[in-house]
Amino acid sequence: MKALTYHGSGNKSLDEQPMPELLKPTDAIVRMTRTTICGTDLHILKGDVPTCEPGRILGHEGVGIVHRVGSGVSTLSEGDRVLVSCISSCGQCEYCRRGMYSHCTTGGWILGNRIDGTQAEYARIPHAQTSLYRIPNGLDEEALVMLSDILPTGFECGVLNGKVQPGSTVAIVGAGPIGLASLLTAQFYSPAQIIMIDQDPNRLEVAQRFGATACIDARTTDAVAEVMRLTESVGVDCAMEAVGIPVTFELCESLVAPGGTVANIGVHGVKVDLHLEKLWDRNIAITTRLVDTVSTPMLLKTVRAGRLNPKPLITHRFPLNDIVAAYDTFSRAADTRALKVIIEMP
Amino acid sequence: MKALTYHGSGNKSLDEQPMPELLKPTDAIVRMTRTTICGTDLHILKGDVPTCEPGRILGHEGVGIVHRVGSGVSTLSEGDRVLVSCISSCGQCEYCRRGMYSHCTTGGWILGNRIDGTQAEYARIPHAQTSLYRIPNGLDEEALVMLSDILPTGFECGVLNGKVQPGSTVAIVGAGPIGLASLLTAQFYSPAQIIMIDQDPNRLEVAQRFGATACIDARTTDAVAEVMRLTESVGVDCAMEAVGIPVTFELCESLVAPGGTVANIGVHGVKVDLHLEKLWDRNIAITTRLVDTVSTPMLLKTVRAGRLNPKPLITHRFPLNDIVAAYDTFSRAADTRALKVIIEMP
Amino acid sequence: MKALTYHGSGNKSLDEQPMPELLKPTDAIVRMTRTTICGTDLHILKGDVPTCEPGRILGHEGVGIVHRVGSGVSTLSEGDRVLVSCISSCGQCEYCRRGMYSHCTTGGWILGNRIDGTQAEYARIPHAQTSLYRIPNGLDEEALVMLSDILPTGFECGVLNGKVQPGSTVAIVGAGPIGLASLLTAQFYSPAQIIMIDQDPNRLEVAQRFGATACIDARTTDAVAEVMRLTESVGVDCAMEAVGIPVTFELCESLVAPGGTVANIGVHGVKVDLHLEKLWDRNIAITTRLVDTVSTPMLLKTVRAGRLNPKPLITHRFPLNDIVAAYDTFSRAADTRALKVIIEMP
Amino acid sequence: MKALTYHGSGNKSLDEQPMPELLKPTDAIVRMTRTTICGTDLHILKGDVPTCEPGRILGHEGVGIVHRVGSGVSTLSEGDRVLVSCISSCGQCEYCRRGMYSHCTTGGWILGNRIDGTQAEYARIPHAQTSLYRIPNGLDEEALVMLSDILPTGFECGVLNGKVQPGSTVAIVGAGPIGLASLLTAQFYSPAQIIMIDQDPNRLEVAQRFGATACIDARTTDAVAEVMRLTESVGVDCAMEAVGIPVTFELCESLVAPGGTVANIGVHGVKVDLHLEKLWDRNIAITTRLVDTVSTPMLLKTVRAGRLNPKPLITHRFPLNDIVAAYDTFSRAADTRALKVIIEMP
Repeated sequence: MKALTYHGSGNKSLDEQPMPELLKPTDAIVRMTRTTICGTDLHILKGDVPTCEPGRILGHEGVGIVHRVGSGVSTLSEGDRVLVSCISSCGQCEYCRRGMYSHCTTGGWILGNRIDGTQAEYARIPHAQTSLYRIPNGLDEEALVMLSDILPTGFECGVLNGKVQPGSTVAIVGAGPIGLASLLTAQFYSPAQIIMIDQDPNRLEVAQRFGATACIDARTTDAVAEVMRLTESVGVDCAMEAVGIPVTFELCESLVAPGGTVANIGVHGVKVDLHLEKLWDRNIAITTRLVDTVSTPMLLKTVRAGRLNPKPLITHRFPLNDIVAAYDTFSRAADTRALKVIIEMP
Repeated sequence: MKALTYHGSGNKSLDEQPMPELLKPTDAIVRMTRTTICGTDLHILKGDVPTCEPGRILGHEGVGIVHRVGSGVSTLSEGDRVLVSCISSCGQCEYCRRGMYSHCTTGGWILGNRIDGTQAEYARIPHAQTSLYRIPNGLDEEALVMLSDILPTGFECGVLNGKVQPGSTVAIVGAGPIGLASLLTAQFYSPAQIIMIDQDPNRLEVAQRFGATACIDARTTDAVAEVMRLTESVGVDCAMEAVGIPVTFELCESLVAPGGTVANIGVHGVKVDLHLEKLWDRNIAITTRLVDTVSTPMLLKTVRAGRLNPKPLITHRFPLNDIVAAYDTFSRAADTRALKVIIEMP
Repeated sequence: MKALTYHGSGNKSLDEQPMPELLKPTDAIVRMTRTTICGTDLHILKGDVPTCEPGRILGHEGVGIVHRVGSGVSTLSEGDRVLVSCISSCGQCEYCRRGMYSHCTTGGWILGNRIDGTQAEYARIPHAQTSLYRIPNGLDEEALVMLSDILPTGFECGVLNGKVQPGSTVAIVGAGPIGLASLLTAQFYSPAQIIMIDQDPNRLEVAQRFGATACIDARTTDAVAEVMRLTESVGVDCAMEAVGIPVTFELCESLVAPGGTVANIGVHGVKVDLHLEKLWDRNIAITTRLVDTVSTPMLLKTVRAGRLNPKPLITHRFPLNDIVAAYDTFSRAADTRALKVIIEMP
Repeated sequence: MKALTYHGSGNKSLDEQPMPELLKPTDAIVRMTRTTICGTDLHILKGDVPTCEPGRILGHEGVGIVHRVGSGVSTLSEGDRVLVSCISSCGQCEYCRRGMYSHCTTGGWILGNRIDGTQAEYARIPHAQTSLYRIPNGLDEEALVMLSDILPTGFECGVLNGKVQPGSTVAIVGAGPIGLASLLTAQFYSPAQIIMIDQDPNRLEVAQRFGATACIDARTTDAVAEVMRLTESVGVDCAMEAVGIPVTFELCESLVAPGGTVANIGVHGVKVDLHLEKLWDRNIAITTRLVDTVSTPMLLKTVRAGRLNPKPLITHRFPLNDIVAAYDTFSRAADTRALKVIIEMP
């Protein structure tokens, strides 16, 4: 089968690879029908993720059709159309039983990282019963690719951790796919304001269309001053960090109101300065989270009910054969205006 | 009347001061019977608290007897024995209605800071109805002085924010009065382990007596390694910072388990390093809080029910005339083994 | 001044009454500009509310202009446009500090019940600072009359107690003003389904317009069977009772899914049968609540942000002089299609 | 092997039965070392539990040693000492993922009910990985039998649902094993008062020893009046029903304070009267729950930490050969003073 393979820092190619096989009774093999590329895949390609070794098939998102199931899989059958979760979870270890699937002792984020992933014609999915979700009839499968990772990430790490509530005020720093996923799912809770902050006018324009109540171009506007103006000098109840660098995290520290929350979503490579000399008496919380995907069943319900439409996050489509071009398009988002690119299997 | 007065950095004296007067209908004048000294008072004396100006009477803790009440005070009467909260709260502003008395728009921590305080024969207490607590009959009033500040601080900032639960594991960094108050009130929730970390063997000995399940002398022992040994290499569900300097906060970052909480209690004067490169995917929360004293009624109930005994926090007693000596004793805690010193009024 | 006065069971009239006066320093006198009639007023007129004695001016809803304030009122001034809460709360007693304003020891539901109310040209409002809400500029004051009682009631007793969540399923039994207020505010949380059940096709039609995903006419349809059909035989996560009689409460018992909540909103005059022999192992909660109006500041924010539009709840308008006709219209809702009737002051 | 077998209403005997066999890859066979008898077993024997058919081996509690594991069981091995949970849970269905193991679609309370149980030399345990708990070294296994059912039941249905908090007031109606388990675990949260109500002076004496702050003999004392006296006429924050009949549930309705909770624990066979005419405006919650045993890992931690000692719940011991006598002793608890009887395997 064909699969996008990581060959060490800076190198990848669409290679012929052997078909995956069932290794454990709880595995399933999924024939992928669509996958996508994540910012994390670009991190791997920079060599920033040492757990991902050369030879690995990348990808941790997608939808497909169950091809084979192990003897321990009773709730899924060949032919079932399924959503692949970016997090593999056994459902049974201490972490899974606390809802922290991200820390599953035999799972977590392993797809396209510690084991081969989904940017391929077929993928082996461990703990299939609790890592695949049957797709209800009538749902747009392409749109559901957004539920593998970015929508649960935005929702759990940003919206739930950030305790977004009716009438509350929210600032989201970073209007990339994750920030936009946070923007979409923050609206589940009817906040009074959602202020998007970015440096890319195109992405801010998208944010406006997606429901932002205000957009701040941080290149041209003093974001702190503008947020204070919009919030009667109080700051926001929830500041979400959706970039992953010190300057944006420290901006969130400046935006959060007394009693509020800084919900970190970004993947950070270096430490940040935490200004406790200003924050110690502000009654705030700072949260971090690798997505658990515990919210996936709920997100499927909201899509099915028409309360959430993930489709507009998709900007480009490529056949698997052109996946290298898809990577190029995705990696030059400022130029290409790419948000999420769909890879379609033959 | 006599009152301990701040005269600018490094200077204080017991002076004759005019009697306080009712300034607003919601004020009360309390004849103090006992007060105490807080670490914050030492900060003020170092000149670290610019809101506290020379001439100010210090002190924000104590018990006493209502001497006069304003026309707007209907729930308290002259002669009532009362506990003074370190936080003045109106009960009516937006923050008070959210339970954030610390941010009361006309209160907060003002006693002995922005207005004259309790290290005096008489003190004016604003918002008396919601800042004084009538003392139930039969309670030891001296012990209740611990409920003005340190017990609600340890409980709210440490135990509640830290989400201490039955069976959970707790580390408290700093075994001073606040850390010990956290230790006492953490036991409300029956955690499996409470590990105290300090550099003062005397304070650790006290912690052992107060219910710590393990004590670590950070001068002689690698605290991270020892906590990991005690927690099967997982870390603690809750790490409380009760010192207020970078090294102890950063220690907490190293102690916290996935899914856990770092509850900051300390007053910080400089920034700390937040190692998001290690913590971004650990699903943790970091909390800050200036005590709200919303838990004071509950703490009074637990004292009354015999579930909490604050008395052992008191190590020394001085008459008001010797308050300067009391400051000296309190400030040299390593030598004097002082925890809390009671100042008794004539 | 003119005021609608209760003269004992079955009797009321628009009478000339003396102007209200400030009785306590915390009182305010409000010149009412608009009020409305509540189902509870009809209960009083049936003689069902013994705390309301003949001679009482009725009404506990409305907006107006501050006419005079007591000496203890510092946050409101003459001329301020204000919303009157149906619940008077001191903000300072034990219940108020727990957010249970409904049980305020010197307040609660007293307006138009234990003290004179708002269906008058002027009304005395006790605990003015915490029972009146300044109206932000630019808001439609008529629409805000809906925030005195029915919107917080539907939201707190129905939506909050019922734990409505994104993707959850909700049934509301009773499509009168309170049920519709619950329907409007349930949408703050983006549930997947909101099923309205009533016997009045007109009200169900309104419910459909207000966002119900399904409407069941209980005269012609087996409501239990239909709800089970709509929920894949599971029942609803939240069943709200918005009528106040045994048959509708017992219907809710039949609708609730395992793990769900029956949120009672209705005012009940007799006991109901609780089928614990069916429910003991269903892991459900049943909640009751007299509205606390703690959510009023939040509701004002959502109105201001355009997330909530209370206006369509208003169906009729009458001048104060015609308030008796307004009562007639409101009491014959099945014929007149009345939801809420606005009474406009001269 | 020998096993206590149900032969229809009123009939049971210790019979020779075939050894259980692994039926699914996720099963384990446990050689039981100790089991016990539950009030529910007596219900079955009265013919009240139609899901339990004649021929069934009774029992859903106990500890033992893993004898064989299915091919899908990787976290347990032969020879492991294990605690059997009364609830079988797959950990993977929608209910299990919400923590509602009691409603597991392929589990729940099935042991000794829908499938053969634990009052036997060997028992088949479905979903072994998530229904058995390895016993930490050094723990008293006999005491752990109390963790199969009654301690999680008292804790989850009574204490957690009842929201017991530091300083709160609790009444427990029924001082049988479940009520006493609630009493023991309520103390995890340091309530100010725990008032036990029963009609058996012996059980009340036990309750006193177990930490009750007051005991009421309902035969000789007006329980409502006495609880009101003890709570300054407010009632209790949490009233737990641990009997299962209308009169005790309705007593709880009379005991609960505004804002409080009635936590039902009892198994009910008939409806009760819910006095909504008195309760609709009291802001209370009523909860029901079949134990989920989600708290079992936590309870094991508290036992291990010495925060909970289940041992005193055990009053009698019998060898398996005398299990019929053990049933007799257990069923005549008023005479025999039996709480829990341990059945020891040969």
